[in-house]
Amino acid sequence: MRIDIISVVPDLLKSPFEASILKRSIDKGIVEVHLHNLRDYATDNYKSIDDYQFGGGAGMVMMVGPIDRCLTDLKSQRNYDEVIYMTPDGKTLNQGIANELSLKGNIIILCGHYKGVDQRVRDHFITREISIGDYVLSGGELGAAVLCDAVIRLIPGVLGNETSALTDSFQDNLLAPPVYTRPAKYNDWEVPEVLLSGNFPKIEAWREEQAYERTKKLRPDLLDD
Amino acid sequence: MRIDIISVVPDLLKSPFEASILKRSIDKGIVEVHLHNLRDYATDNYKSIDDYQFGGGAGMVMMVGPIDRCLTDLKSQRNYDEVIYMTPDGKTLNQGIANELSLKGNIIILCGHYKGVDQRVRDHFITREISIGDYVLSGGELGAAVLCDAVIRLIPGVLGNETSALTDSFQDNLLAPPVYTRPAKYNDWEVPEVLLSGNFPKIEAWREEQAYERTKKLRPDLLDD
Repeated sequence: MRIDIISVVPDLLKSPFEASILKRSIDKGIVEVHLHNLRDYATDNYKSIDDYQFGGGAGMVMMVGPIDRCLTDLKSQRNYDEVIYMTPDGKTLNQGIANELSLKGNIIILCGHYKGVDQRVRDHFITREISIGDYVLSGGELGAAVLCDAVIRLIPGVLGNETSALTDSFQDNLLAPPVYTRPAKYNDWEVPEVLLSGNFPKIEAWREEQAYERTKKLRPDLLDD
Repeated sequence: MRIDIISVVPDLLKSPFEASILKRSIDKGIVEVHLHNLRDYATDNYKSIDDYQFGGGAGMVMMVGPIDRCLTDLKSQRNYDEVIYMTPDGKTLNQGIANELSLKGNIIILCGHYKGVDQRVRDHFITREISIGDYVLSGGELGAAVLCDAVIRLIPGVLGNETSALTDSFQDNLLAPPVYTRPAKYNDWEVPEVLLSGNFPKIEAWREEQAYERTKKLRPDLLDD
């Protein structure tokens, strides 16, 4: 999979791709991630990529021109399956969308910044708009990093132990059961006895029950789906 | 506001705090963000902070001990309003939670990694569990960065123009209206005439209508709240 991320602050995205699972997936050659600075596609001396909004109001708007030129440049080099725009009014990311995107080949992610992009970019270039949640961020960069992480970890070969992703929260519409590790007693807080029993069918049943109870208590909406 | 972030891969979080609005808020002295490497609180030669889970199964679990020592160290230096754990089964972040947290003084954010933390950490140390959305990430680090961004930009003085945050999506349960900037015509794509009219009451009415129509079409659930 190849992911091209277009941003006005590409440096913001450096460290998430230089650590942990994202770095390992890149080192293994499973994923390529390329960061593009939108200012490289400005045409004036000031490297302008934004301007005041028509009709007045606070906040700058990202112009069509530089985005058009950047997208045209990338698309002339290869085909892309999706041109995704990160925006709080996009479709809310969930595990199903992450699963679906993990099967794609080449993806472009455009990060909005300031007040967002000129609506004509959304009307004419974007194939999919994604939000990571119902809150506003300074820009789409962290959303892009979150999307990449959610998607990349699902690609076969990225996680050391593949069953690890399958037993995560949400893959079966249930929250994960509680987990414990050594020591069995810390202060006077003990690990549930069943987990120390060695009786695996009983442990499995306990975990299923805990996952269900936890979901019913914390996120009953997940059980309705 | 002071935010202490505890992580096993603190380097992952470096660049988001060295760019854009987060950097500016730190430079202005409005916010302090401190990254702590959990391994500094390990006690064995291997700097262990995780171990196999009791009862078997894929994925490592973060141990109570190092987290307890790190929290005890921080709490001995100042009082904290919240000890937040980033986890996919926490309460889903929304603009209301971000608004609320932006009024706090000192906050600790603990990032889960691998299969998460030993349940006893959650039972005994955590005051609030937050998820940034219904998807699974490699760790809580990106969630912590997202939470910091959503919260910090709401603190007075952080954004250049304060009305900019108030007209964002979600602050009034409506998505933002479309925005446009120069040129008024790109290819043959034109900006809606009303925005060029200079008639501000009419522009305001158009924006309100667009915000409502967009919300009704894309996110009718927001109108029910």
